[in-house]
Amino acid sequence: MLPIRQRLYEVIFEADTKIGKFFDLSLLIVILLSILFVMLESVPSIENKYHDILKIAEWIITIIFSIEYIVRIWIVRHPRKYIFSFYGMIDLLSVLPSYLALVFAGTQGLMVIRALRLLRVFRILKLNRYLKESAVIIRALRESRYKISVFLFGVLTLVIIIGTVMYLVEGAEHGFTSIPRGIYWAVVTLTTVGYGDISPETSVGQFLASMVMIIGYAIIAVPTGIVTAELTKHSQKETSSRVCPECLTEGHNHDAKYCNECGTKLN
Amino acid sequence: MLPIRQRLYEVIFEADTKIGKFFDLSLLIVILLSILFVMLESVPSIENKYHDILKIAEWIITIIFSIEYIVRIWIVRHPRKYIFSFYGMIDLLSVLPSYLALVFAGTQGLMVIRALRLLRVFRILKLNRYLKESAVIIRALRESRYKISVFLFGVLTLVIIIGTVMYLVEGAEHGFTSIPRGIYWAVVTLTTVGYGDISPETSVGQFLASMVMIIGYAIIAVPTGIVTAELTKHSQKETSSRVCPECLTEGHNHDAKYCNECGTKLN
Amino acid sequence: MLPIRQRLYEVIFEADTKIGKFFDLSLLIVILLSILFVMLESVPSIENKYHDILKIAEWIITIIFSIEYIVRIWIVRHPRKYIFSFYGMIDLLSVLPSYLALVFAGTQGLMVIRALRLLRVFRILKLNRYLKESAVIIRALRESRYKISVFLFGVLTLVIIIGTVMYLVEGAEHGFTSIPRGIYWAVVTLTTVGYGDISPETSVGQFLASMVMIIGYAIIAVPTGIVTAELTKHSQKETSSRVCPECLTEGHNHDAKYCNECGTKLN
Amino acid sequence: MLPIRQRLYEVIFEADTKIGKFFDLSLLIVILLSILFVMLESVPSIENKYHDILKIAEWIITIIFSIEYIVRIWIVRHPRKYIFSFYGMIDLLSVLPSYLALVFAGTQGLMVIRALRLLRVFRILKLNRYLKESAVIIRALRESRYKISVFLFGVLTLVIIIGTVMYLVEGAEHGFTSIPRGIYWAVVTLTTVGYGDISPETSVGQFLASMVMIIGYAIIAVPTGIVTAELTKHSQKETSSRVCPECLTEGHNHDAKYCNECGTKLN
Repeated sequence: MLPIRQRLYEVIFEADTKIGKFFDLSLLIVILLSILFVMLESVPSIENKYHDILKIAEWIITIIFSIEYIVRIWIVRHPRKYIFSFYGMIDLLSVLPSYLALVFAGTQGLMVIRALRLLRVFRILKLNRYLKESAVIIRALRESRYKISVFLFGVLTLVIIIGTVMYLVEGAEHGFTSIPRGIYWAVVTLTTVGYGDISPETSVGQFLASMVMIIGYAIIAVPTGIVTAELTKHSQKETSSRVCPECLTEGHNHDAKYCNECGTKLN
Repeated sequence: MLPIRQRLYEVIFEADTKIGKFFDLSLLIVILLSILFVMLESVPSIENKYHDILKIAEWIITIIFSIEYIVRIWIVRHPRKYIFSFYGMIDLLSVLPSYLALVFAGTQGLMVIRALRLLRVFRILKLNRYLKESAVIIRALRESRYKISVFLFGVLTLVIIIGTVMYLVEGAEHGFTSIPRGIYWAVVTLTTVGYGDISPETSVGQFLASMVMIIGYAIIAVPTGIVTAELTKHSQKETSSRVCPECLTEGHNHDAKYCNECGTKLN
Repeated sequence: MLPIRQRLYEVIFEADTKIGKFFDLSLLIVILLSILFVMLESVPSIENKYHDILKIAEWIITIIFSIEYIVRIWIVRHPRKYIFSFYGMIDLLSVLPSYLALVFAGTQGLMVIRALRLLRVFRILKLNRYLKESAVIIRALRESRYKISVFLFGVLTLVIIIGTVMYLVEGAEHGFTSIPRGIYWAVVTLTTVGYGDISPETSVGQFLASMVMIIGYAIIAVPTGIVTAELTKHSQKETSSRVCPECLTEGHNHDAKYCNECGTKLN
Repeated sequence: MLPIRQRLYEVIFEADTKIGKFFDLSLLIVILLSILFVMLESVPSIENKYHDILKIAEWIITIIFSIEYIVRIWIVRHPRKYIFSFYGMIDLLSVLPSYLALVFAGTQGLMVIRALRLLRVFRILKLNRYLKESAVIIRALRESRYKISVFLFGVLTLVIIIGTVMYLVEGAEHGFTSIPRGIYWAVVTLTTVGYGDISPETSVGQFLASMVMIIGYAIIAVPTGIVTAELTKHSQKETSSRVCPECLTEGHNHDAKYCNECGTKLN
């Protein structure tokens, strides 16, 4: 392994050294700037005024990302594995749109792909203490995934039936032009978003809508309850890890120095 | 019992065999397709273009469901019991609308009945591991049904009084044309849906509305708290997995030393 | 005490006897009907058509309530105390508007007072098992009243500052005609109601609004957390009431027959 | 220290004496009145009618606050420290705008600064029992700040990607004129505010929007779960009120037999 490869490895992959931290921070700023430019480019008034500056900035960022991508491929032990990994794909997608735009004209759709650069931020954050906290949330969500699936499926059924009923009750003249539109309305209502672009106008429709809202109000409790129960369980488990050497009691507080049950000193 | 009846029984009612699983999956797809066709039929532009294809697809599905219905009646031990059971009724309602549409013309209302086919999905899901999870949710909801009833009744009273007050404050010229409409507005507001089809325009009305919203914000905590407390209780009880060697009772507390039911020492 | 007074007392105040239950149920129906009539009266199309029927129905109900009110005064031990009690006032307000409407014409405001009849329903419900459940909710709300006050005060401060800032940022031409209106908007947004009658139109305003919404999204967790923590505490206490006669251990499950700790039979 | 300084100190800084309580209450009323006047001044119709009265009221309040500010500087032990403290700055900002308005004309922006007077209320409230309760909420929020940061960052990423996709799907003709506007829409939708000033109109857009709403419905559970888990933990710890006779440590678990800190037997 070449010394320069090893040094680059430290800079790019290690987050504990000073230079590694500096690299992570710089990359974070470049990514956020890049997202900002994508946004600004989409605002007509700004795009018209600063078109050239945005173009140049986009190319500078693309070149930085390209170099980083090539260096990564060069220094990792298993380049193929990296290229086809989740972050490898994101890294490629971060630079590809700019090059493709050279070949194909009028490719607005590439903008979304450029916005995906934001996902690169997660790699940087992965390396610090947010990792542990997000792990708790993700674990709670993962362990409650069956309950949440059941809930979502129930909501889906409810929404389809409500949407069909409202389509028949209100009809096309009040904005419910089809069942999918009725379902869209049911989702908007049940989730308490309530745009008001479609809203019931007949008395029966308003009565049914009121009932749907109250149901939505009640069932929002379910996912909250599921996640909370899961998080509470974990946060309670979190406190209990040490075992008393004398009486083998578990479940001591984090800051406990002596055993609750027999008074033996804990280590 | 004929061998063919027995084999059909296995296919339709058992989910653990390979062919049983295949049958369940096929039925699931047919049901979902059937719902999709009902939706598409309601979209005018699609209905005009593909009227014939949708009609044929509907009849194919109706015939599949009809055969399935007849086979089920044939193979179950107590046909009468099946016919009048919840799923028996749903199965009948899944095929009836298509036949009725032959006799009666312009029967839009049958669409809702066809949408009820979706409920058939639950029978299929009943047979897998989602059952246990949904049981936890349903038990939590059932055990908190009195608390939720009290809550809903309180909300109802609040909504009627608020609706009446706002009807008097705002009046017909601002959209509050009657007390039921005021109540509709109160529900829309208290549940934080907020369509904006009716919204207060006087200063007093907007002040009252602000108070209603903050109340709604606070009381949304109540159903959530109820369900969460119930789910937390269960998820804590859930963790006890020991079985009494004498009476085989499950669900003992973690720290239990003797069986709750028969007093036998637990190990 | 006259026998008739005693019998009337049983009918009106006791809910366990058969006639007492019948009286409660009848009263419940009359109250709900009376509310229904108040609502229907406010709908112009119904009022025009059935004016006379509604008038007669209103008078029948008023007379029933008047008789009930007089009988209650007659049979209670401390009439003065009853008259000035909460339910005594509600009972009086249930009949007063109709008599006042004879003297004064065009008294729309009396409608609200008539809607207060709904509160009478709570007296009837007080007598059954909903009492215990609502007690749990009310106790949880009462014990968290300081935390909720702090929360509401914080929300109020936030809303006033946000409303003032938005009034300056957006100005009268985008609907923010005054600070109170800005505060109204802030409440509508923070509580996630979102009518859309006033919505930010400048870029700065929309950026600030986005931040307000995300804050609102985060702080809705606070009241929910407060009430849930309180309800969880109670629901955990709820399970522990019996004490083992042998080892005096507390905290047995509701359905426990033998002590967890020593195996003694519980009574 | 002069006797008058000492007496003023007692009046201003102590809340337990009768005169201290009276001072706090008076100050609270003056602050709230002052905020009310700022609000009323912004309402065109009131401002036009009562311009002079509001002007005079504003000056009376400014003079009261100025005197209070000077007295505070005079009596505190470290005037410099007070002046540059949070509340010192707020106190200065409470009087500055009125004096600045004498020099500079048309300074609408000073209104926000005047609204900051509301923050002074917290100093008064700090002195009573609300302190303890708000401490619990603040501690729960502080201890869950990493989890909430992770959550907010996840929401931000989601919102940027959704906003970009919707900008491309719906386009400028349906109100999604730029990516920032798409992000604004995504925040409005995900937080279930739903103004309806921008809403999807294409079928694909409405389908995506429905999915965003259901996601928003599910993830609202996360911050609630986080805060609730934190508050539950505290409220359970809170219940332990025994004190160790040796080391005077508080906050032992309910079932603790020996002190966590020094191992002494608890009674």
